[in-house]
Amino acid sequence: MGDGGIAIVGAGLVGIGWAIVFARAGLTVRVHDRDADRLTAVPDLMRRSLDDLHDAGLIDDPDAVIARVSCHADLGDAAGDVDYIQESVLERVEVKRELYERLDTVLADHTIVGSSSSGIPASAFTEGLGIAPRCLVAHPVNPPYLARIVEVVPAPWTLPETVEAVHALMHRVDQHPIRVNRELEGFVLNRLQGALLREAWALYDEGYCSLADLDATVSEGLGLRWSFMGPFETIDLNAPGGIADYAERLGGLYLSVARDRTDPQPWSADLIKRVEAERRQTLPAQDLGARGAWRDRRLMALAAHRRTQDV
Amino acid sequence: MGDGGIAIVGAGLVGIGWAIVFARAGLTVRVHDRDADRLTAVPDLMRRSLDDLHDAGLIDDPDAVIARVSCHADLGDAAGDVDYIQESVLERVEVKRELYERLDTVLADHTIVGSSSSGIPASAFTEGLGIAPRCLVAHPVNPPYLARIVEVVPAPWTLPETVEAVHALMHRVDQHPIRVNRELEGFVLNRLQGALLREAWALYDEGYCSLADLDATVSEGLGLRWSFMGPFETIDLNAPGGIADYAERLGGLYLSVARDRTDPQPWSADLIKRVEAERRQTLPAQDLGARGAWRDRRLMALAAHRRTQDV
Repeated sequence: MGDGGIAIVGAGLVGIGWAIVFARAGLTVRVHDRDADRLTAVPDLMRRSLDDLHDAGLIDDPDAVIARVSCHADLGDAAGDVDYIQESVLERVEVKRELYERLDTVLADHTIVGSSSSGIPASAFTEGLGIAPRCLVAHPVNPPYLARIVEVVPAPWTLPETVEAVHALMHRVDQHPIRVNRELEGFVLNRLQGALLREAWALYDEGYCSLADLDATVSEGLGLRWSFMGPFETIDLNAPGGIADYAERLGGLYLSVARDRTDPQPWSADLIKRVEAERRQTLPAQDLGARGAWRDRRLMALAAHRRTQDV
Repeated sequence: MGDGGIAIVGAGLVGIGWAIVFARAGLTVRVHDRDADRLTAVPDLMRRSLDDLHDAGLIDDPDAVIARVSCHADLGDAAGDVDYIQESVLERVEVKRELYERLDTVLADHTIVGSSSSGIPASAFTEGLGIAPRCLVAHPVNPPYLARIVEVVPAPWTLPETVEAVHALMHRVDQHPIRVNRELEGFVLNRLQGALLREAWALYDEGYCSLADLDATVSEGLGLRWSFMGPFETIDLNAPGGIADYAERLGGLYLSVARDRTDPQPWSADLIKRVEAERRQTLPAQDLGARGAWRDRRLMALAAHRRTQDV
């Protein structure tokens, strides 16, 4: 990609997070949203997150970052001539399809489009469009300026050079792109999260453990190692002979445990109600916002900590 | 529990880790192992870990910790009069059963025994013994002086006051005990780990992702939040209306994904071989030990970081 700049289409929390990622890396960012109020709010919302990042020692100059960002009420004005668009509109297939049809009429020939879609594959909203070979999913974790992972998922008709260009761009802006070789429901991150959640909901439902104790099993146990190495490296280092040795020792246990879970159950209304009631005793609904701010401070402090560590 | 002190039976890595936990908290620790060479090595092995903890700013005085630990070749001499025994012998049911039969003949009436068993329930090796009501599983993560979680799992015949006493002791020595209300295969921690691993192995086997990218999805994504809050708190903060709102939005996706996994497969020999080969390209076998030392340094640095954060 050249230096034609970046456009963000959709200025919700995810879009604003992406604007920070690209502008922090020195790129010019043009933001569009069809909701004028939302567009007007972009500088103030960015400023709040950038000040927090500055306080955490993660960026030097919030003003310089904001100075690279402009807001545009017209889609063609924002996106017509950029190298890359990070599409971050509502997670509904008809909303995305309508936007991609408009993009098809206004984009330059070289522009690539990555969707922040967290579950809908690109094939569901790009089929038959001229821009389809230059579209894919680039799914972040929220907020992307603190969690670097980006799932890059091509549609069947996405060009290989589109995939490579998005990988190069993500590396350039200090994100961590992963290659998902073909489309699948939930992509990779939410499938891994869903698998752990499924077991956690079942253990709660069956009365083995409280929610707080299930949470602590991760936050005081499994999650410590997983915050700097993944599940395969973890088990590779958990048996003297490495991962094959580990599989030999524990594969049978894990298979036996998996056989308890061959009948997927929905999270029933009754179960959700019980879980909600127990959570609200720990965290009243009116404190959710403050706790979310605490989570972001913890993520920032963790990011600052990780910078001091060797990999 | 009074101040009769602690005995560690089994001086492998897990037992030595426990000796550090209890002695660091100011308790007197008596270590026994039937292998004389292993027993002789205890002070040096403790010293190595304690020096690392000191370098990381996690303890003040390694000498004072070691001074609280004594080694005993005779089981009765080590364990005969203590308040609590942390049993940390080999994870084989016949080894544990033989030890518990011996403990039954030498223990004082008040002594409680917690087993470090990572998978075998206490009912499998305490049935019919006089000490059975005072026995349970107290399963740590390795090393317990860096990961605080302890799964406390009673057998059907374990007395409620035994459970309460072990909880109180674990809190006293700054561990984080969780209540597992009844025995189940794999307990809670390894069931959660196994569920995530199962999906990860399947995604690798089906060609969606490399091992390194699956690892990064956790270490640069999911694992960041999970290092300071668990999976339920994570999703409670991931939808504006809390966990019920999240369940409403994503429950259907997770159910659909779970329906892909109704046929548990063993980690086949061919799959293990491919995974092992790919891991060894990233980390040659001869570097496993050094990487394990790196992991421990990272865990120590993370523990020091977490001490600076509010909960």
